Amino acid sequence: MADHPPLHEALEPLAFLLGSWEGAGSGEYPTIAPFRYCERIAFGHAGKPFLAYTQRTWAPDDGRPLHAESGYLRHTGGGAVELVLAHPTGIVEVYTGRVEGAALRLATATVARTPTAKRVDALERDIDVDGEELSYLVRMAAVGQPLRHHLAATLRRT
Amino acid sequence: MADHPPLHEALEPLAFLLGSWEGAGSGEYPTIAPFRYCERIAFGHAGKPFLAYTQRTWAPDDGRPLHAESGYLRHTGGGAVELVLAHPTGIVEVYTGRVEGAALRLATATVARTPTAKRVDALERDIDVDGEELSYLVRMAAVGQPLRHHLAATLRRT
Repeated sequence: MADHPPLHEALEPLAFLLGSWEGAGSGEYPTIAPFRYCERIAFGHAGKPFLAYTQRTWAPDDGRPLHAESGYLRHTGGGAVELVLAHPTGIVEVYTGRVEGAALRLATATVARTPTAKRVDALERDIDVDGEELSYLVRMAAVGQPLRHHLAATLRRT
Repeated sequence: MADHPPLHEALEPLAFLLGSWEGAGSGEYPTIAPFRYCERIAFGHAGKPFLAYTQRTWAPDDGRPLHAESGYLRHTGGGAVELVLAHPTGIVEVYTGRVEGAALRLATATVARTPTAKRVDALERDIDVDGEELSYLVRMAAVGQPLRHHLAATLRRT
């Protein structure tokens, strides 16, 4: 964001996320065919006590856009974090969780949706950074299925 | 977004929003001091059946960042629209509404929030485009107050 202000001190435990990350992932769920995707993630800040998060994915074969999501991550003290996300599929997610070292462990407190969106009941996200590599796992309970593995990806800092 | 693909046909009724808009607004609410802000809004697309929306505001006097929000707008047919938003304040909003000519009328179906966010119960947003000018009004019910005027702004296409 503008003018690269200093990072807000509340975000110091989240500084390991800052920047842009690019890589690939794969998804599966009982109700859909398995799929692979390329992905770009960015965590930015404007000097205020939140990180802005954006993500988009595209098809490995022809580059057509697949998914996107955007939202904001806050550290509310003592390692507690909160993440809010909006999806073009008409889903919004409110997560609470913890930052521990260079890892985030997040679970939805609330998932809400527009009238035409698919039903999503709960998600869990694990994000781990090891040096220049960011990996994540997403588990999801949706469309009548219990919470189970949905997405895994590994990205490198660009 | 990448490569300027053609607009998805479902978005034709929303094409009047596309682009970047910049201007100024003012806010008021019984629980806070009135305030003025500068604002930039962008509606973009990637060839898929949704518009990506981003917004940020800054202080007129010193340019310090104030608010930001991001989300996605869909036209689900017959003039019905759905908007999902995430805010760095820990709020997510799910709107339903109508597009009529170059105007959107939106009201929240759901507002959800993180444990540390202020309580927001409902919002209404009116967005009107007249040529190169976009204006909007936001009404809000929050922190125990009934639905009432909160924000008004006028922006020009950049």
